[in-house]
Amino acid sequence: MTSAFQYSIALSFAAIGIAAPYPGAAEKGHENASPIYGVTIPEGYRDWKFIAPAEEAPPLDELRAVLGNDIAINAYKNGALPFPDGSILVKLAYKRKQSAEFAPATVPEGPTTVQVMVKDSKKYPASHGWGFGRFVDGNPVDGAQHKTCLSCHESKVKDHDYVFTRYAP
Amino acid sequence: MTSAFQYSIALSFAAIGIAAPYPGAAEKGHENASPIYGVTIPEGYRDWKFIAPAEEAPPLDELRAVLGNDIAINAYKNGALPFPDGSILVKLAYKRKQSAEFAPATVPEGPTTVQVMVKDSKKYPASHGWGFGRFVDGNPVDGAQHKTCLSCHESKVKDHDYVFTRYAP
Repeated sequence: MTSAFQYSIALSFAAIGIAAPYPGAAEKGHENASPIYGVTIPEGYRDWKFIAPAEEAPPLDELRAVLGNDIAINAYKNGALPFPDGSILVKLAYKRKQSAEFAPATVPEGPTTVQVMVKDSKKYPASHGWGFGRFVDGNPVDGAQHKTCLSCHESKVKDHDYVFTRYAP
Repeated sequence: MTSAFQYSIALSFAAIGIAAPYPGAAEKGHENASPIYGVTIPEGYRDWKFIAPAEEAPPLDELRAVLGNDIAINAYKNGALPFPDGSILVKLAYKRKQSAEFAPATVPEGPTTVQVMVKDSKKYPASHGWGFGRFVDGNPVDGAQHKTCLSCHESKVKDHDYVFTRYAP
C-alpha cells in the first residue's frame, strides 16, 4: 500500500548507515513484500530460535516449525502478551514424506511456504498491530490469500494476541 | 563407565576457570549423565538453532524437532561429513494433540523425551565418535534403552555419519 513511502524510508536508513527498525518489515525492499502489509522475509530468519513444531493434516499434509527473533522469544519466555513491537514470527512449512530410513517417521520432503508475522502497532493499527506475509519460493502470494490471514487469526486466537503458536518446552 | 574420571576432569576445568570442551558431555556433572556414554543434557540447548522437524507415527505419536549447536549447524550448512568433534544434536519430542483452535493442525501436548548426540572421537571410539543420551523429565533412561541407540543408528544411517536428521531448508 505505502510502497513509495517504504522505499524512501529504506533509502533513508541506508543513507545514514543504520539498520531498519524491524528487519522483517522493510529491509529487503518492497518488490518482494506481501500485498496489503508490505511484509518481507526477514534476513537471517533460518538461524532464529525455535518456538514449536506442528503438523497439518492432508490435503496440505505438512510438517511445520515456527521460529522467532529475540524480541518474540523473550516475550514467549516471559509470558508477556501482547507481543511487543519488533516481534517477528516465521513459520516454515514442508510437505511431509515417510522416512526412507526409519519407517515410523515422517520428515520434510520440500518447503512449501514461509509465513511471517511482524508486530508494529504504529504501522498496522487496523490489524491489531500485526502485518502478515505468506511466501512461496521467496515470492509473496496474492492479495486474495493475504486477506484471509487477519480474519482467521482474529476469529480463532484473539486471546493470544492473534498468534496460534505456543512455546514448546 | 568412567564417571570418576569425568568428575575429576569437570573439577579440573572448574578449577582453572574455563569451560569444558563439549558442554553436552561433562559440564553438568555425572549424576544426570546417560549410562554407557556419560552424556548430559547440554546447557542452553533450547536456544540452539533449528535443523528439522519430524513426526513419529503411533504408538509414540509424537512431534519432534532437532536443534544443534553452532559446530553441528555449520557442518550441516557446509555439507561437511563426518560431523566434527564438538558437534551436539538435541532432539525434542512431544506427544501430539489436535489443536483446539485450528482443527487440521496437531501441536505439542507435552514433552516426552530429550535425546542428545555428542561427537567426540577420542571419547567414543567404539561408537563411531558418537555418545548418546536419552532423557525423560531431565533424567537419563536405563542402560538397556541406551544399548539400542548405537545398533539402530549403525544399521540405518552409517552413510550419513550415523545421524538420521537432514537439514531442512
